[in-house]
Amino acid sequence: MNVLGIDPGLANTGYGLVARRGARIVALDGGVVHTAAGVPAEQRLASIFSEVDELLERHRPDAVALEDLFFGQNARSAFAVGQARGVVMLAAGRRGVPCASYTPQQVKQAVCGTGRAGKDQVARMVCAMLGLPGDPLPDHATDALAVGVCHVNHAPLAQALAVAR
Amino acid sequence: MNVLGIDPGLANTGYGLVARRGARIVALDGGVVHTAAGVPAEQRLASIFSEVDELLERHRPDAVALEDLFFGQNARSAFAVGQARGVVMLAAGRRGVPCASYTPQQVKQAVCGTGRAGKDQVARMVCAMLGLPGDPLPDHATDALAVGVCHVNHAPLAQALAVAR
Repeated sequence: MNVLGIDPGLANTGYGLVARRGARIVALDGGVVHTAAGVPAEQRLASIFSEVDELLERHRPDAVALEDLFFGQNARSAFAVGQARGVVMLAAGRRGVPCASYTPQQVKQAVCGTGRAGKDQVARMVCAMLGLPGDPLPDHATDALAVGVCHVNHAPLAQALAVAR
Repeated sequence: MNVLGIDPGLANTGYGLVARRGARIVALDGGVVHTAAGVPAEQRLASIFSEVDELLERHRPDAVALEDLFFGQNARSAFAVGQARGVVMLAAGRRGVPCASYTPQQVKQAVCGTGRAGKDQVARMVCAMLGLPGDPLPDHATDALAVGVCHVNHAPLAQALAVAR
């Protein structure tokens, strides 16, 4: 199972492709799509769409995983993130790739074993778990890898529960 | 000048095409794109994108006008509206159609002459101004027409001010 984790944002959209290989989870790709501040938002969204669409074309993931709204986020930033997120989900939807959402607590739990872990701890654990070099990746890329890991760990359980029902 | 006003939402996206004809503003199209609640969000966003893209293809507007976040909106609804809005802006961006945003106060001011008008008053004024039949249109369609009217009235002034600078 290959999962494309995405941390959407108008200025920086992080992405990370993770896959299960037996008992291990490995990272296959990761990075950040940047868009310039002076450019109209509709053009920035078009850039995000194109780059995510190309990642979907190249890697053919089984799912796209995204973080949900976090508790306490303000409406203005939720509105801005929502726009970038909509474009990412659209890219998936047009290719028939299902999207899954996880709360920040679920992501932290999946990566660090506790929903109260800090951002640095999540980044360090993601790198250790995926065997990535010590050099810190950009925050948005590790956040994207983290939600990808969360889905890889969560999806088999969710499927088993659905079958058991 | 033809303007496609949009009132974005995951369940209901209102649209209204307005144009200036001499001293008058006329409505050329209007309606609502519905998406079903049980369908995954990425598929609903794909439906919104397709229908808005088709409207852009058919009418070739000079601009797309959207309402901005309203003051006091909660983060959860801002997040949901943002996703639909991002998809609409993307459709415009991919065709090189510029997007303009107006606050709810600017829209009410443009239609009713006061930023404190109620929703019903905006709907009645839009219908009267555009010479639409008394039968009430769906709320989302009149909201979309209202933001379109706002842009038609605002854009020449904004251009004149930009030239004067």
